[in-house]
Amino acid sequence: MINANDPSLTSWIETAANSDFPIQNLPFGIFKTQSSSPRIGVAIGDQVLDLAIMNKLGFFDKIKIDNSVFTNQYLNDFIALGKQTTSGVRDRISQLLQTGNPELRDNKEAQAKVLHYQSNVQMLMPVKVGDYTDFYSSIDHATNVGTMFRDPNNALLPNWKHLPVGYHGRASSITISGTNFHRPKGQTKPNEAEPPVYGPCRLLDFELETAFIIGKETQLGESISTANADEHIFGMVLFNDWSARDIQTWEYVPLGPFLAKNFASTISPWVVTLEALEPFRTVGYTQEPKVLPYLEYSGDRNIDINLDVLIQPENTEETLVSHSNYKFMYWTMEQQLAHHTVNGCNMNIGDMLASGTISGPTPDSFGSMLEITWRGTKPVKMKDGSERKFINDNDTVIMRGYCQKDGVRIGFGECKAKVLPAK
Amino acid sequence: MINANDPSLTSWIETAANSDFPIQNLPFGIFKTQSSSPRIGVAIGDQVLDLAIMNKLGFFDKIKIDNSVFTNQYLNDFIALGKQTTSGVRDRISQLLQTGNPELRDNKEAQAKVLHYQSNVQMLMPVKVGDYTDFYSSIDHATNVGTMFRDPNNALLPNWKHLPVGYHGRASSITISGTNFHRPKGQTKPNEAEPPVYGPCRLLDFELETAFIIGKETQLGESISTANADEHIFGMVLFNDWSARDIQTWEYVPLGPFLAKNFASTISPWVVTLEALEPFRTVGYTQEPKVLPYLEYSGDRNIDINLDVLIQPENTEETLVSHSNYKFMYWTMEQQLAHHTVNGCNMNIGDMLASGTISGPTPDSFGSMLEITWRGTKPVKMKDGSERKFINDNDTVIMRGYCQKDGVRIGFGECKAKVLPAK
Repeated sequence: MINANDPSLTSWIETAANSDFPIQNLPFGIFKTQSSSPRIGVAIGDQVLDLAIMNKLGFFDKIKIDNSVFTNQYLNDFIALGKQTTSGVRDRISQLLQTGNPELRDNKEAQAKVLHYQSNVQMLMPVKVGDYTDFYSSIDHATNVGTMFRDPNNALLPNWKHLPVGYHGRASSITISGTNFHRPKGQTKPNEAEPPVYGPCRLLDFELETAFIIGKETQLGESISTANADEHIFGMVLFNDWSARDIQTWEYVPLGPFLAKNFASTISPWVVTLEALEPFRTVGYTQEPKVLPYLEYSGDRNIDINLDVLIQPENTEETLVSHSNYKFMYWTMEQQLAHHTVNGCNMNIGDMLASGTISGPTPDSFGSMLEITWRGTKPVKMKDGSERKFINDNDTVIMRGYCQKDGVRIGFGECKAKVLPAK
Repeated sequence: MINANDPSLTSWIETAANSDFPIQNLPFGIFKTQSSSPRIGVAIGDQVLDLAIMNKLGFFDKIKIDNSVFTNQYLNDFIALGKQTTSGVRDRISQLLQTGNPELRDNKEAQAKVLHYQSNVQMLMPVKVGDYTDFYSSIDHATNVGTMFRDPNNALLPNWKHLPVGYHGRASSITISGTNFHRPKGQTKPNEAEPPVYGPCRLLDFELETAFIIGKETQLGESISTANADEHIFGMVLFNDWSARDIQTWEYVPLGPFLAKNFASTISPWVVTLEALEPFRTVGYTQEPKVLPYLEYSGDRNIDINLDVLIQPENTEETLVSHSNYKFMYWTMEQQLAHHTVNGCNMNIGDMLASGTISGPTPDSFGSMLEITWRGTKPVKMKDGSERKFINDNDTVIMRGYCQKDGVRIGFGECKAKVLPAK
């Protein structure tokens, strides 16, 4: 049994020290080249390994997987094989890429067929998302929002510390990093005393989030315990839950956000497996008051994932506007999944469950412009001298995430999209 | 060009006067028999016509459709052929079933292959639902809820008459009529002064709704106008948006209903086409204040659909608890779809958009137990002498819907499910 996470592992494929994709990561994604149809790839350094060709060439012979699983538009069928198999594929790839292993290292002909530079491929949506849920699980974010819009002395609503508040979102408009979109139009009420108006959103915001992808389905009526939840989680991506604040303010009572969110969400292309993230587990929040038994969990279930947000105005440098961390989450993924299914709600492979905006305790770690600029009252300076209260036309918002420990750094790649002017 | 809706049409297949499925209806669904795989069927009287075999036998030769479209688990690929084709199939079926047409009438051998009694087939989910949205578009329902939970003098929230309020729901737990389910468990707060508790929902309710199914997709960034909306609507089903009121009360602030809804929704199996519903169009609500231009529409866009809800306690008769009508909707489907896409949100074939609870102006037309019993203060009597404030274990809730005009009656079939005790 190999340990694909071993910090001492090195690969014969060179990976830069600051690469998101050393041999300890090996995330899965869907890519195509100019000459190939969509297929499953694994990122290694600045390259991507074509699993369909790897399988055809016999490198996975001991695992026995029908090649149609690899020449697929989505990871769903691969994920459906189960963690034992998908972990087995990751372990085998780790083995093949290790410095001392000659199988692929010394086979230049095979290498020419199975390796592409990432700069030469197009990444596609990694999974077909059946249902998408967004949580609201960062205590600093919920406190900031409650402070701004309700009562600073009573910022959290009464249910917040008893259950991971969540709501359903739109799956169809989740797009892969690099998919630019037009500023949404809609109905807002800029002037309290006057009727609502129609026009482009004026207060466009990002929300720094991560999302996990369901790896094992359940039937209607079944629940998942916190203890079993990890079996049902395949991996994670970065998630930008774009939000039109002015549309949201007007529309959201009493049933929650709708058009303020469903015009676009952006995810990073590589699904980092839960296995790869295991070494970076860290202690969770102390939850007081004590949660109900179905939400209790044991062990260190938070994950230390550094999260950065940068804004790049057209034709200029990026400016870092937030440095947050997934470890600031109050509710863990295991709790979110246990809560989501406590009523028997069924989960399908590929379903995506997002964290909610991840803010840390200090202003430099807030996860949205709403919080960073405190509703626009404290604009942030860009490196080009301009200021931002929210996101301008032609701004690109970039999110990056990485874990670092014992000399190993694994990352998510970029989650980025540019806001084009309203149509 | 035939008119498949002509009230004077009769079929050589006998259909009872009170049948939901005379020749003027011809709704589409997915069925299987003990010996056949899932396939597309059309309801006629108490029978169902197997379109896969019809196509194989050459009855649709002029339309030219690959048979894999008919031997499919869902209607999505059929719907994707476009309204001209699906309407053409309906017209051709109408032609074949008309009294004077000998093609199928006089071919007993073919009849034996293509006709099944509905009592001998199992109906399945008609479409694969990508995304599901629920609106809140009945003014009487919104007024009742606002009166009960907020302020009788200010029952409607400020946005309600300016836009069709809606929210995203869970697609995975939408089930076909006849799928019984266990009473959901979850977190509630029965006692204001004490911490929340975990256990079976105590206030289980139905919501009388209809849903329409998207028939033509749009890309991210595209909007659908009210004038073009009908091109994008394939047809309608009855929809029971089961609701756990006690879970809802505790969880829903600030982001809307979540576990209170996603444990189960029930739909009727036959998709009644928008074409079949056209003769039953009726005038809509006068909308004051005037809506924004993108929500304006012309013509009679409501539909006169009688809607009944019945409760059948275990082993006893049904009791009618509501007689409502789709015409009581304040916002039309065309407005809902225009609003949903005004921000560029993309629609996929099979997406389901539900009306929200459809209540009429009088208590006998309210669309939920919450309203009928006014939060449990006015229990309703069942025919067996028992009383209901909400839905009990082993109660079956049945919804029926039909349009009636010029001697023609077309219906939706039943939308029913039984609530089993909590697991």
